[in-house]
Amino acid sequence: MSSSLPSTLEPIVRDVIAPAAEATDREGRFPRAALGALGAAGLLGLLSAKAVGGLGLGLAEAAQGVQRIAQDCPSTAMVLTMHYAGTALIEKYGATELRQAIAAGRHVTTLAWSEMGSRSHFWAPVGTARRDGDTVVLDGFKSMVTSAVEADSYVWSSRPTQGDGASSIWVVDSKAAGLTRPTPFDGMGLRGNASAPIKAEGVRIPFANLLGEDGNGGELMNNDELPVFTALIASSSIGMMDGTLARATAHITKNRFAESGSSICDLPTVRAYLARAQIRADQARVLRDDALAAMAAGRADTMLRVLEVKASAAEAALEVTDTAMRICGGAAFRKDVGIERLFRDARAASIMAPTSDVLYDFIGNALCDAAAKKD
Amino acid sequence: MSSSLPSTLEPIVRDVIAPAAEATDREGRFPRAALGALGAAGLLGLLSAKAVGGLGLGLAEAAQGVQRIAQDCPSTAMVLTMHYAGTALIEKYGATELRQAIAAGRHVTTLAWSEMGSRSHFWAPVGTARRDGDTVVLDGFKSMVTSAVEADSYVWSSRPTQGDGASSIWVVDSKAAGLTRPTPFDGMGLRGNASAPIKAEGVRIPFANLLGEDGNGGELMNNDELPVFTALIASSSIGMMDGTLARATAHITKNRFAESGSSICDLPTVRAYLARAQIRADQARVLRDDALAAMAAGRADTMLRVLEVKASAAEAALEVTDTAMRICGGAAFRKDVGIERLFRDARAASIMAPTSDVLYDFIGNALCDAAAKKD
Amino acid sequence: MSSSLPSTLEPIVRDVIAPAAEATDREGRFPRAALGALGAAGLLGLLSAKAVGGLGLGLAEAAQGVQRIAQDCPSTAMVLTMHYAGTALIEKYGATELRQAIAAGRHVTTLAWSEMGSRSHFWAPVGTARRDGDTVVLDGFKSMVTSAVEADSYVWSSRPTQGDGASSIWVVDSKAAGLTRPTPFDGMGLRGNASAPIKAEGVRIPFANLLGEDGNGGELMNNDELPVFTALIASSSIGMMDGTLARATAHITKNRFAESGSSICDLPTVRAYLARAQIRADQARVLRDDALAAMAAGRADTMLRVLEVKASAAEAALEVTDTAMRICGGAAFRKDVGIERLFRDARAASIMAPTSDVLYDFIGNALCDAAAKKD
Amino acid sequence: MSSSLPSTLEPIVRDVIAPAAEATDREGRFPRAALGALGAAGLLGLLSAKAVGGLGLGLAEAAQGVQRIAQDCPSTAMVLTMHYAGTALIEKYGATELRQAIAAGRHVTTLAWSEMGSRSHFWAPVGTARRDGDTVVLDGFKSMVTSAVEADSYVWSSRPTQGDGASSIWVVDSKAAGLTRPTPFDGMGLRGNASAPIKAEGVRIPFANLLGEDGNGGELMNNDELPVFTALIASSSIGMMDGTLARATAHITKNRFAESGSSICDLPTVRAYLARAQIRADQARVLRDDALAAMAAGRADTMLRVLEVKASAAEAALEVTDTAMRICGGAAFRKDVGIERLFRDARAASIMAPTSDVLYDFIGNALCDAAAKKD
Repeated sequence: MSSSLPSTLEPIVRDVIAPAAEATDREGRFPRAALGALGAAGLLGLLSAKAVGGLGLGLAEAAQGVQRIAQDCPSTAMVLTMHYAGTALIEKYGATELRQAIAAGRHVTTLAWSEMGSRSHFWAPVGTARRDGDTVVLDGFKSMVTSAVEADSYVWSSRPTQGDGASSIWVVDSKAAGLTRPTPFDGMGLRGNASAPIKAEGVRIPFANLLGEDGNGGELMNNDELPVFTALIASSSIGMMDGTLARATAHITKNRFAESGSSICDLPTVRAYLARAQIRADQARVLRDDALAAMAAGRADTMLRVLEVKASAAEAALEVTDTAMRICGGAAFRKDVGIERLFRDARAASIMAPTSDVLYDFIGNALCDAAAKKD
Repeated sequence: MSSSLPSTLEPIVRDVIAPAAEATDREGRFPRAALGALGAAGLLGLLSAKAVGGLGLGLAEAAQGVQRIAQDCPSTAMVLTMHYAGTALIEKYGATELRQAIAAGRHVTTLAWSEMGSRSHFWAPVGTARRDGDTVVLDGFKSMVTSAVEADSYVWSSRPTQGDGASSIWVVDSKAAGLTRPTPFDGMGLRGNASAPIKAEGVRIPFANLLGEDGNGGELMNNDELPVFTALIASSSIGMMDGTLARATAHITKNRFAESGSSICDLPTVRAYLARAQIRADQARVLRDDALAAMAAGRADTMLRVLEVKASAAEAALEVTDTAMRICGGAAFRKDVGIERLFRDARAASIMAPTSDVLYDFIGNALCDAAAKKD
Repeated sequence: MSSSLPSTLEPIVRDVIAPAAEATDREGRFPRAALGALGAAGLLGLLSAKAVGGLGLGLAEAAQGVQRIAQDCPSTAMVLTMHYAGTALIEKYGATELRQAIAAGRHVTTLAWSEMGSRSHFWAPVGTARRDGDTVVLDGFKSMVTSAVEADSYVWSSRPTQGDGASSIWVVDSKAAGLTRPTPFDGMGLRGNASAPIKAEGVRIPFANLLGEDGNGGELMNNDELPVFTALIASSSIGMMDGTLARATAHITKNRFAESGSSICDLPTVRAYLARAQIRADQARVLRDDALAAMAAGRADTMLRVLEVKASAAEAALEVTDTAMRICGGAAFRKDVGIERLFRDARAASIMAPTSDVLYDFIGNALCDAAAKKD
Repeated sequence: MSSSLPSTLEPIVRDVIAPAAEATDREGRFPRAALGALGAAGLLGLLSAKAVGGLGLGLAEAAQGVQRIAQDCPSTAMVLTMHYAGTALIEKYGATELRQAIAAGRHVTTLAWSEMGSRSHFWAPVGTARRDGDTVVLDGFKSMVTSAVEADSYVWSSRPTQGDGASSIWVVDSKAAGLTRPTPFDGMGLRGNASAPIKAEGVRIPFANLLGEDGNGGELMNNDELPVFTALIASSSIGMMDGTLARATAHITKNRFAESGSSICDLPTVRAYLARAQIRADQARVLRDDALAAMAAGRADTMLRVLEVKASAAEAALEVTDTAMRICGGAAFRKDVGIERLFRDARAASIMAPTSDVLYDFIGNALCDAAAKKD
């Protein structure tokens, strides 16, 4: 972990992100000021190489940042996650100028992968790309794009222009002609994300905007993106658990029964709920840390950890926020203690592609394949 | 069950309640039109004796009505539940004129029991009642009253005017001087309830508004109210499960993956989630039916069923709505399929006093007491 | 329920079954004395028509008996369940003489359906039946037959002798030449069942031993057997929960901490565990009662209840016995309080075909099919 | 982790421990040969300082060893855990000669702390110690001592001889006059432990056998023992999960349905069960690793991790072994696949003092205390 990251980030959370969090949720307002502050502090370029003006930090620091922000505003954390997710591919395969813009904090990007037709199976896009000389014409319908209304570019998946590869990945300027964005979703949680479906009809972009090889999108998705995306989404879930547990513990410690003068936390059943939740949160945290360590070291079990880390944290966050709602009772239900929003926001990670259930299937397959090979 | 109740209720749900449900939730709008229609059809007087102009039906029919309405608008179901809860005491102990007003559909009542000081321990109010000749002066702070802003009367708990009884119960005119209602809560669910805290400062009411004996509030709460309240809240939870399962099953049956042409329900894991949820819902339903049968027959295990029925249904509803969110994925999260509201609304029953955890303690005590007596 | 059944059964449980229960489990000893006593009292013929000398009672009474016995000896309850399961088909389709023997308590039967090859998919046997004049020659390998070593006959499934029906059902004399039984299983629970695999090699039986039509086994399984079998297995699980809860409640009520003089049940967390377990048991019980009522009345939802009832009770029994092990701690682990055996025995129902997971799939399919038809 | 440990341990597990595991469980036979082999290889002295002839390794290596052995014989792992638990105190506070005997593999020790009177609250023994010159006379009744019948010494807790400390800790020769051991327990699991209650009546030992200060037992328990004990018990649970998952994965991969030719692992529901179980096991594993890292570094959150690690692993093992029983079905129930024993053995850790529920209470208290101090 970077020791300087907290000193840079903490004032931004305290002065910009946390004060706006309630309105971000209530009004579904995109956290533009937060992105401005993060950009100004260099944090939008956290993953960008120093050569292009970035901080040159790694996934562990990105995870640390996302986790901290998610404690106070999960919408901002998700927007940043998707920006880092796009940046990871652009840094490796993209144009220098674009990389410089990101590093400088002038450009926000995001992933545009999920489709109505393929549902959570984002690895098999049905949208098309047709080559026309130096350009490519994209058609397709993305069902749910974080920051859709506000990002400067989309890292976009389509079928390849030729061959039988699973997909190709492109950078698409969000102002390109032919893109339409219906009204942002009115969702149960993560309401400040400006998430929306995006329709592409005859969108013409330079062929040079291709990331990696035409038809090699699957490799980029699995090898380059999946580790980044799953670690960051998991970190967002962990941050929400931290924020929830801190608020819940404070609530049950400070509020008393008039009848007896005792605190809510004097109830053994409440302490037991809290303890179970803390263990769940800590299990998810250390598994995430271990996943990051596995990736950094190229350990043999890296892919298992990549598949595990998001489901591990997302499912734990369902339980932890549910427990917090229970032990804080009516106060939490009435939005008094700030837990209710984290409860709603935490529901997203489990059903965001690859969903927990899809990941379970991948993990089960991987374990059985390994066992079958043993004989 | 009454065979005529559905024929009366169904058109009201279809034409009045369901069409308004989305706005009731989004805008936190009290379902005034629904109450008007229910009143006009005699259903606000469902529990009222025929002698005062009511339908003279029983708890089973009230449960049937609440359950049906909760499928489409849990806020309306909760307002009606609290009206019936108040009516049950008023019918037994109240003034004829008031009973006639309720029977005629001109008067909506509700319970005002929970207090900030006593938290979920509503059986030990800290608010006071001071006798002054033929009148009583009430002071207290109710933390959360359903229909607070809209009801015509409150069935109000306080300490007794004298003696060491646990409480006394009064009917308080909602327009009485000295009552103040802060803004209704902006809650996570049941947003159309017009729920609010109510402060009573020197509220003067006739002593004749006493329900039962002064100091005997505990008996009214336990013997008269608890069976009614727990059965109706449970029925509301059951209705929400029914509404959720119907929507979820329809969603997974009709939506297909473009990649393969298969439906979501072709996934065995999804079918298994659905089946577990259906069993949970049906277990809660039949336990509720058994509780009603026990009450009607005065069975020896009636009190156990009264203590079980609300927690049984409320906890099942937490699981069932959670499962529905999972199997319907992003569509449910985005409010498309109508499950998200039921998910939020269903969170209330578990933490509404007596909370599931308080009921668990009562049940555990009852079982251990019975075992201790066996020797 | 029959009011005379308890007065007949209670002394048998008290004087014969309960005293032998510990040895039945420890030594894996078949409860022969119990069967003798049940036969002498007419209870092996409980489902047999009065015309053949039976008690002429119904499934509800059979369930009541199995439930009572399972409180003290689940092995005996399972042997009886399988006897009733076989009897249900024999009563409807079998020879009068055999029916008379069962009614008289001289003949114990059982089902022999599960196969190694088909695993839990008993509806698709791979064993064969070859017609030879008035006889049929059976070959096959049944993987797990309750009472295998001790029953007088097996109700046996095979492929039909001709046609493409799924199966045919036969009564096979357990002393027929060609039947071999390996040593009974040394299982984790239900150790007194004398369960074993059975191999049939060229077993010749009269064609007249066919139950129903050749090839119609599927109809007998689904229409005649499934309701009986699932209701009785569920009742066995419910009895185990009753037995477990009674022992656990007694243990935590009577045992005290020397340090403080308080009972284990003075711990609120323990009371909460107990209460949740009691609710789970009661939910399973009332769902079973409702399933019996649905069958008796031919209700439209009968098949749903048939599919639900076994999984509902079996899964509840997993939780309830697990909770009892937890709250009784070391004493339960050390067999002191009689819970440990019920914990082990209760594991069987969930994985006995049709397993809970198979039933979940059937239920999910049924719900989705019904939803698909609505449009 | 030590790289040489596996090369020393693996042949012992393969050649001595695993082959005896089945009989160890079935006959409740103490794993004497395993202890002989471990002693000969120096592994009974793994924690002993090199100065007294030990291997001079640390807790991480002890955990590694216990985890490996628990995959194949949890009884042996538990006996070794208790030996290490006793050794940790003896190494710090005990006599050189005893330390040398342990290091040389000639002496097996164990903890004798749990009492009938204090139940799982081992920190408050009710047994007494009376000083008599250079000797001490012990009276007391230990309810459950691992290796009771076979160990060479007991690390024994009592009230102090004077003062108001919570307890004192002594080394007691297992052959001392006045010690009586009833028959070993016939338990559900860990059947090879030779666990038994031990009664001490006027047992006279040298006062010099005191470990630490008289009355300071609480400090030894909390500071010296708790980290060792919880980390090793957790490691035993993790080993059991590893052994279970390996066997379950092999079973579902290799066994096929005759009907379709597909493997059990072709069922998506089975893969999902397996994946969830693997995540639970890995969460427990990495939390244990983090606890060891916290202890080694003296991190500020060490005590939280110490309190979490045992409950985290023990509860995960309940789930993981339960899932394995489910997905391996009848084969597991019939002891065919070796999972059934691990399932039974895994039940012990959760209810072994400090039980999971006691640890939850400690954790809840710690979290609330920390929150209360923040203001």
